[in-house]
Amino acid sequence: MSNEFELDFNRSDRLGFPEVIYGASKPLPVLRDILQSYQEKGLNALATKVQAEKGQVLTQEFAGSHYDETSGAFLLKKIESDESESNGVAILSAGTSDLYVVNEAYYTLQFLGCHAARYNDIGIAGIHRLLGKVEELKKYKVLIVVAGFEGALPTAVGGLLPQPIIAVPASVGYGVSEGGQVALNTMLASCANGISVVNIDNGYGAAMAAYRILANAS
Amino acid sequence: MSNEFELDFNRSDRLGFPEVIYGASKPLPVLRDILQSYQEKGLNALATKVQAEKGQVLTQEFAGSHYDETSGAFLLKKIESDESESNGVAILSAGTSDLYVVNEAYYTLQFLGCHAARYNDIGIAGIHRLLGKVEELKKYKVLIVVAGFEGALPTAVGGLLPQPIIAVPASVGYGVSEGGQVALNTMLASCANGISVVNIDNGYGAAMAAYRILANAS
Amino acid sequence: MSNEFELDFNRSDRLGFPEVIYGASKPLPVLRDILQSYQEKGLNALATKVQAEKGQVLTQEFAGSHYDETSGAFLLKKIESDESESNGVAILSAGTSDLYVVNEAYYTLQFLGCHAARYNDIGIAGIHRLLGKVEELKKYKVLIVVAGFEGALPTAVGGLLPQPIIAVPASVGYGVSEGGQVALNTMLASCANGISVVNIDNGYGAAMAAYRILANAS
Amino acid sequence: MSNEFELDFNRSDRLGFPEVIYGASKPLPVLRDILQSYQEKGLNALATKVQAEKGQVLTQEFAGSHYDETSGAFLLKKIESDESESNGVAILSAGTSDLYVVNEAYYTLQFLGCHAARYNDIGIAGIHRLLGKVEELKKYKVLIVVAGFEGALPTAVGGLLPQPIIAVPASVGYGVSEGGQVALNTMLASCANGISVVNIDNGYGAAMAAYRILANAS
Amino acid sequence: MSNEFELDFNRSDRLGFPEVIYGASKPLPVLRDILQSYQEKGLNALATKVQAEKGQVLTQEFAGSHYDETSGAFLLKKIESDESESNGVAILSAGTSDLYVVNEAYYTLQFLGCHAARYNDIGIAGIHRLLGKVEELKKYKVLIVVAGFEGALPTAVGGLLPQPIIAVPASVGYGVSEGGQVALNTMLASCANGISVVNIDNGYGAAMAAYRILANAS
Amino acid sequence: MSNEFELDFNRSDRLGFPEVIYGASKPLPVLRDILQSYQEKGLNALATKVQAEKGQVLTQEFAGSHYDETSGAFLLKKIESDESESNGVAILSAGTSDLYVVNEAYYTLQFLGCHAARYNDIGIAGIHRLLGKVEELKKYKVLIVVAGFEGALPTAVGGLLPQPIIAVPASVGYGVSEGGQVALNTMLASCANGISVVNIDNGYGAAMAAYRILANAS
Amino acid sequence: MSNEFELDFNRSDRLGFPEVIYGASKPLPVLRDILQSYQEKGLNALATKVQAEKGQVLTQEFAGSHYDETSGAFLLKKIESDESESNGVAILSAGTSDLYVVNEAYYTLQFLGCHAARYNDIGIAGIHRLLGKVEELKKYKVLIVVAGFEGALPTAVGGLLPQPIIAVPASVGYGVSEGGQVALNTMLASCANGISVVNIDNGYGAAMAAYRILANAS
Amino acid sequence: MSNEFELDFNRSDRLGFPEVIYGASKPLPVLRDILQSYQEKGLNALATKVQAEKGQVLTQEFAGSHYDETSGAFLLKKIESDESESNGVAILSAGTSDLYVVNEAYYTLQFLGCHAARYNDIGIAGIHRLLGKVEELKKYKVLIVVAGFEGALPTAVGGLLPQPIIAVPASVGYGVSEGGQVALNTMLASCANGISVVNIDNGYGAAMAAYRILANAS
Repeated sequence: MSNEFELDFNRSDRLGFPEVIYGASKPLPVLRDILQSYQEKGLNALATKVQAEKGQVLTQEFAGSHYDETSGAFLLKKIESDESESNGVAILSAGTSDLYVVNEAYYTLQFLGCHAARYNDIGIAGIHRLLGKVEELKKYKVLIVVAGFEGALPTAVGGLLPQPIIAVPASVGYGVSEGGQVALNTMLASCANGISVVNIDNGYGAAMAAYRILANAS
Repeated sequence: MSNEFELDFNRSDRLGFPEVIYGASKPLPVLRDILQSYQEKGLNALATKVQAEKGQVLTQEFAGSHYDETSGAFLLKKIESDESESNGVAILSAGTSDLYVVNEAYYTLQFLGCHAARYNDIGIAGIHRLLGKVEELKKYKVLIVVAGFEGALPTAVGGLLPQPIIAVPASVGYGVSEGGQVALNTMLASCANGISVVNIDNGYGAAMAAYRILANAS
Repeated sequence: MSNEFELDFNRSDRLGFPEVIYGASKPLPVLRDILQSYQEKGLNALATKVQAEKGQVLTQEFAGSHYDETSGAFLLKKIESDESESNGVAILSAGTSDLYVVNEAYYTLQFLGCHAARYNDIGIAGIHRLLGKVEELKKYKVLIVVAGFEGALPTAVGGLLPQPIIAVPASVGYGVSEGGQVALNTMLASCANGISVVNIDNGYGAAMAAYRILANAS
Repeated sequence: MSNEFELDFNRSDRLGFPEVIYGASKPLPVLRDILQSYQEKGLNALATKVQAEKGQVLTQEFAGSHYDETSGAFLLKKIESDESESNGVAILSAGTSDLYVVNEAYYTLQFLGCHAARYNDIGIAGIHRLLGKVEELKKYKVLIVVAGFEGALPTAVGGLLPQPIIAVPASVGYGVSEGGQVALNTMLASCANGISVVNIDNGYGAAMAAYRILANAS
Repeated sequence: MSNEFELDFNRSDRLGFPEVIYGASKPLPVLRDILQSYQEKGLNALATKVQAEKGQVLTQEFAGSHYDETSGAFLLKKIESDESESNGVAILSAGTSDLYVVNEAYYTLQFLGCHAARYNDIGIAGIHRLLGKVEELKKYKVLIVVAGFEGALPTAVGGLLPQPIIAVPASVGYGVSEGGQVALNTMLASCANGISVVNIDNGYGAAMAAYRILANAS
Repeated sequence: MSNEFELDFNRSDRLGFPEVIYGASKPLPVLRDILQSYQEKGLNALATKVQAEKGQVLTQEFAGSHYDETSGAFLLKKIESDESESNGVAILSAGTSDLYVVNEAYYTLQFLGCHAARYNDIGIAGIHRLLGKVEELKKYKVLIVVAGFEGALPTAVGGLLPQPIIAVPASVGYGVSEGGQVALNTMLASCANGISVVNIDNGYGAAMAAYRILANAS
Repeated sequence: MSNEFELDFNRSDRLGFPEVIYGASKPLPVLRDILQSYQEKGLNALATKVQAEKGQVLTQEFAGSHYDETSGAFLLKKIESDESESNGVAILSAGTSDLYVVNEAYYTLQFLGCHAARYNDIGIAGIHRLLGKVEELKKYKVLIVVAGFEGALPTAVGGLLPQPIIAVPASVGYGVSEGGQVALNTMLASCANGISVVNIDNGYGAAMAAYRILANAS
Repeated sequence: MSNEFELDFNRSDRLGFPEVIYGASKPLPVLRDILQSYQEKGLNALATKVQAEKGQVLTQEFAGSHYDETSGAFLLKKIESDESESNGVAILSAGTSDLYVVNEAYYTLQFLGCHAARYNDIGIAGIHRLLGKVEELKKYKVLIVVAGFEGALPTAVGGLLPQPIIAVPASVGYGVSEGGQVALNTMLASCANGISVVNIDNGYGAAMAAYRILANAS
């Protein structure tokens, strides 16, 4: 083959955040090589959607790494648990079915050095659960809202809270909602104002969008 | 042509409700002939989705008829305005954009002799408007809920009220929600329990479903 | 994580029926925890679409539970077999291929305390089988009709019987009918009046819609 | 332009039936030229889906031609009205909404010299209308069945009659059934055995398929 | 459960051909029971799309049965190998990839007592292979043409041969042609006249359509 | 009808921005009534997607209003032209075809009191035009990027600039890109990090998302 | 507005061919301004998909221009009619319905200074018409093949001729083939080797692809 | 079965390139037989998309063969490694995820005797990587550009380089980009001029299109 991997190490200088590795379609040896080239430069790294059998091997091979099996996020960085003082990003979802997306957003924000807090089990079938949290949620600068099935949670949040809202459809559901396309379209068509949306299951992209806001718009 | 129209005049005996005429794709002379055959038998008749230019002619030709231009419903029946004492069906919607569907349901129920009341401007972007009506809405036996765009209103209603709920997607919206397919899918995928759904813009079908409940399930 | 599961235990007070657990995307430990929290409160519980490997473990762990492998319904409730005196809901289908949906509806109605009877092998290719049951079917208050492939059974039933009809498309078929979308659209577009529809494979939702009718519209 | 129209005049020798002209997207002068080249050779000709403004002009220009405005079929051939002794093809449909497809099939069969009879208003919502015609319909060699909306009529016919059945979906309907795709899929997925299907609104193709059977399979 | 299987044993009297069993979604015990009820009555039976693990067991259990693993067709009937004198149905396809559909049609025709011959490897990329067979193919009364990918073979056949042509799309392909939808649409939109089409992979339906022609239209 | 319009006048207190009127599907008299109720309260108002024939009438009836025919935005507010000192939002697009979306975003920001500047003719086919503006674009807090056809502009912008980017697909294109769905999907699937997306043609929604960032995240 | 049109006048130096103007969505004054800026620089210009009412005005305003109403191509360049000695590009199609696409390719090649010849009426339903041209077609360096409906023509051409083939789907057809998506997919899935495809109705893009071959690959 | 395989051995004389075997849906014994019939004639052969378990067996059975597991290409031909002097085709892609498509194109070109070079890791998120290669890439006669996700790479290449460009969408991505349809549509709708496209994952077709250019257009 005529050329080697040419990683974009100086993206951080250009944009303020580093390149991230899409782990799903890369075989283990390729992932290992890429991660090592980061480690040798003393850089942190994040690989997303790494399947369990690959993630478990990498965790053992890279000291100081962290692998979240629910989301497939693999971090070459120490995780600091400082959610208590969180005032950055709140990640809202309806329950355990969406956790794989919530965690991808959460660990990406950890990787970027942002505070983030997770609020699970805020589904709109029991709207009182959201209503009871409205005051608490006002302290965050950005809200990421994850939902599968019919994806109505961001609409409800958007009618109650004024912050930037990044909606993430989750591929959780069956029948017409299988694959997440209905949740995506619901979020795009929402009658609540000013919600913006990322790709289905793209917790990572939502975190990056939140980071762009936190780092540049203040 | 080898045979004439053969109308299903005795459906009422079999099912308890008469045949209804789909007006959209029938030319004026055909509609006129069908309506006359009903009138000659002394039967009431309902034609749905009759375009304005046909409806206006028919209104002048058939004494005692009523034509609602918003929905295209044409009734060969006297309308009695008795909404005040209504305890049958409440038809909920987010606003004037959905009125053509609301009215099709409303006039179909009038045709079937059911009490019906319309509640417009109950969109979920301002959820307080729905919350303020919950007690009043408890008195109806069936709820028809019409919504376009992302179609989330039935989900909100379904989480607050226990009655049978028939959701009707309206083909109001643009971009991904053009044509009503997103509203339809949202309603089908709703996390609120026990909502059932009819075709896009099918206010007539929702009214018939409500009639089946009122006439047979009590 | 900043908060624990917050189950909606008082939904029953608000709507007259309890929360139900979507089992498909929850891992075994999560399902076990949720079921235990119900059991500790002395409440019945229903989890739907629980895969066989999880259902078999839960059946052994929870005394007095019932697991239907065909549909994946798991009940924390004693099943009482009283179909003989049934006058509540009839569940119609074309045959064994649809049984997984039929049973989800059946066990949900059991969970809700409603009488239900199953009529399998009533496909429309042999219409005489349906015609021979018309008188018997008149005694039920609500009809749930399940069909895959082209989904025409509800139309035939709707032309012969006057009760409320809730149609459920089943994801049984191949080629254009794979996944159930054709059956869904056929039911939505049906020329039979007043049929309402729930999501593909949503036997549970059909049962809930029937329950709303039985409990509130009489 | 480097070459003129090169019409396939000898297709009739090869296949037993002549080329037919698709009229919808050809401007009037082109249609006129093509028809004249047929007329000059003393051949009959058929153009399908000719819009009214073009058809009316052509009718005046070509003596002995026939134009059916409902279907847009334009024939350079004398029509002989001999339906009474018909034992060739029966064309069944649910009503006036489908007549534009029925007539395209009917006039194509006229063009090909086949006997054909039209049975309108045989919708399945009133199944007794079909049941009452079963004996009469047994005398035809081929059945063409046209239906819009949910397209269930061919299934019902296929369960009652043994002849070859060619189903034609009509683009009549609204919401999910707009454009005829649902009727098409219903017919393809039909549980009735041995129904074959042609394109949406393709009455012409159905007539040609019937002709292939009548002319070659006996 | 309130009723047993109610098989349609007298369909043969009504339509001239027996009921056929869809094997794909029925578990082994159900298939076994249905087949036994046929065997006890001394009737032949055909089950389609029976997966290999079920088919192999059934072959051992039912003496005189035949199972074709390529197509999944299971016959309770002796196969008589009389292709040599065949003048009934020719089944054409482009190659081994389509053989599973070809064989389903072939064994269904065997079951129905019709002569059938298979012509594989007649793809249109090498059109000379088809041209060389045109004279030989003229002797058959009906042509079944199977094709995957872009599905153009029926168009080529339809331009060269005058018989009834039943086209069957095969779910063979990748990218845009994955699942067979492109082949289906190509066949429906074919510019060759009078081709009719059955569902994707529905070799059985094509055979039934051929049977309707052979048995009734002559 | 049982209730009047119930406008959400206090949304501004709750969320910090007022309700906006969807003008496309409201008839002129309804629009007039709603606008008057705002004017009587001394409130500003914005109606979007108002068709030209309605907008021209309203402009004459409401003194001090502004109507942009390109986008259909109608403002009950004085426009102050202060783009020169702009450091709020830059709206980027490829050219005049997208201007109707650009202007909807622009006038919504005017309505909300935000500074905004429009950069047209920055298509990626001539990437040097974007490269030449990178330094100038760094001064804005939020970037709105509008694109039709294949929708690749936001990806290019996202690789060069670090701010929050809200992408808006425009329904400009033909063939596969007709309707804007391809542009939408390209933006959602973009390999550039942290881009978020709103509905097709939703310039208004993009402006609201920018407003949420400007008003709350700093 | 903060900036003027910034046209990409030097694209010709970079790529060897000039920018082309998409005329469909630009209003007349905008088109006029752009064309004038080209004319003032002494450059040729091409605008595609210009609607008749705009094209007719522009033809009168710009001396030496040419407007083809069939395709909407508007050229600021003298057309030289030298097809006779053509050995560059052959444009093949099935007939007059596809002419609007054929002509867009033809006039684009004229604009680029390439020889081109049009072969209309080469549909595959009469395959002898193509077979009779095979030798003549061998003299061209590139073949552009346009087809609507099922789009099978490029496959037939690809099996007979060895040159580069650029297939263009035309949005001509009805039912499943309406809009050109079926023709597009057939071309992409073609079993003939090495055919490449451009967007539906994109005669311009096909000409540009041919130009890239003629200008750079020799 | 009435006929044996009839391979198209003389396609090479007709078109200048041999038939290629689609390996994905052929069982091992069929592949073995076909390859042996080539080998016995002393011909080279190429089978594409051969799964690993079949490819590994074939490699051992056929001396002098080569199997590339990444793409599934199996060659009955000696591979000569002469990329260094390459001036034929450059294959560009964004990274290891697309390698299975890149390699199918690469080995097909090897089979056809063309020089080819692979340029991986040229994604547009870091556009400088492409910009740095522009001069080097000018030496190739044809460019094949492979991309998954949003598929924007060919657009960027097309704006910078003048050669023929064949774009190949890869089925790499998730959410809306799963399956490659978004990449396909982006490439078809590209605003860069004269890009042509082949089916999703069709590296083989892209190589054949390049071969047609190299062998015939010079």
